[in-house]
Amino acid sequence: MALKLHGAPMSTCTARVLFCLHEKEADFELVPVDLFAAEHMQPPFLAKNPFGLIPVLEDGDLTLFESRAITAYLCEKLKESGTDLIRHQNLKEAATVKQWMEVEAHHFNPAISKIVFQFNVAPLLGKAPDQAIIDENLEKLGKVLEVYEQRLRTSKYVAGDFYSLADLHHIPYTHYFMKTSCAKVINDRPHVKAWWEDISSRPAFMKVAPGMTYGEK
Amino acid sequence: MALKLHGAPMSTCTARVLFCLHEKEADFELVPVDLFAAEHMQPPFLAKNPFGLIPVLEDGDLTLFESRAITAYLCEKLKESGTDLIRHQNLKEAATVKQWMEVEAHHFNPAISKIVFQFNVAPLLGKAPDQAIIDENLEKLGKVLEVYEQRLRTSKYVAGDFYSLADLHHIPYTHYFMKTSCAKVINDRPHVKAWWEDISSRPAFMKVAPGMTYGEK
Repeated sequence: MALKLHGAPMSTCTARVLFCLHEKEADFELVPVDLFAAEHMQPPFLAKNPFGLIPVLEDGDLTLFESRAITAYLCEKLKESGTDLIRHQNLKEAATVKQWMEVEAHHFNPAISKIVFQFNVAPLLGKAPDQAIIDENLEKLGKVLEVYEQRLRTSKYVAGDFYSLADLHHIPYTHYFMKTSCAKVINDRPHVKAWWEDISSRPAFMKVAPGMTYGEK
Repeated sequence: MALKLHGAPMSTCTARVLFCLHEKEADFELVPVDLFAAEHMQPPFLAKNPFGLIPVLEDGDLTLFESRAITAYLCEKLKESGTDLIRHQNLKEAATVKQWMEVEAHHFNPAISKIVFQFNVAPLLGKAPDQAIIDENLEKLGKVLEVYEQRLRTSKYVAGDFYSLADLHHIPYTHYFMKTSCAKVINDRPHVKAWWEDISSRPAFMKVAPGMTYGEK
């Protein structure tokens, strides 16, 4: 039975799982959730995720939410298929992948997501982007990327010389971010720029990115 | 060779790893990092963690930062020792543990950590606790705990009827939170309260909690 992913392609968290599904060459069905009709806040969806957030994965009798838990599950379940994103045969490499997944979640994501929100979501809510929020978070993001720049001088990808879930988790927000006037923060750092160009040219990226039109025509 | 944990017992992130080390009955050494002397911002420590944050684990040639990556690594490495915190023999249970670990990281922690900061850290910086920040985050925390209350009606622990890393990750901040005037948010929810009483009465808690004196005499 195919995996069912409830979500919307424009959502960064849905896209995170979609990138992973393609890397793992998984057989899946995307079940659209209509955010503009607030379908995610209605009882049938809340029964799947009480926090009312997409995406949700259904795999037989397992219902799973939180995009980063879903990708970790998919990588365990589909260990032998597609790209090995978690280095499951090497405990120390696997630990380093987890470490950089945490860096993405706790350092990179909090800053970049607030910037992307101002550019993509605020206008949908009838608000102008708040420049003070953008500036504050650009400064935070710059400091995080300075660590990345040093790391990527000696390592092709964040966790080592192998592409992993730690790199993949960065893709959705960075994709939107690179379309904003703030892209310079990445383009000015040669190793971060080269890393981004690498991870955004993978076949899985080409399959998912065109569907990511968040706040654009 | 014993594991080396660089950190400070009063730090929530260090305590998170200490709880895990005790649950896994690990042989380890705690190497104190003097936060008040800003030891974590000096080159020798920054070489271990470029973000300048404790804790850091050293295991032979592996240096690992980010508390939640360290606990996950310890649970994999010490699979057969102490409490099974990741349900490594059941893929679906393991996925549910990961899901609730993400809930802790992305829903619970952002709210509770800001409240604890106002009570414990702001005074150390010579500031009075900011009531507006406390109120805003108490409201967010209350909504998250409402989901927990429902969940814990039918499940003894967050991920199922077994204690796991998902429960453990909640302990450090909740321990500090329960000493504040906001504890009512937990005490008023009977299933959350019973869960907290359960997870804060484990032998590992008794070993670590007395060292957690953050901003207190």
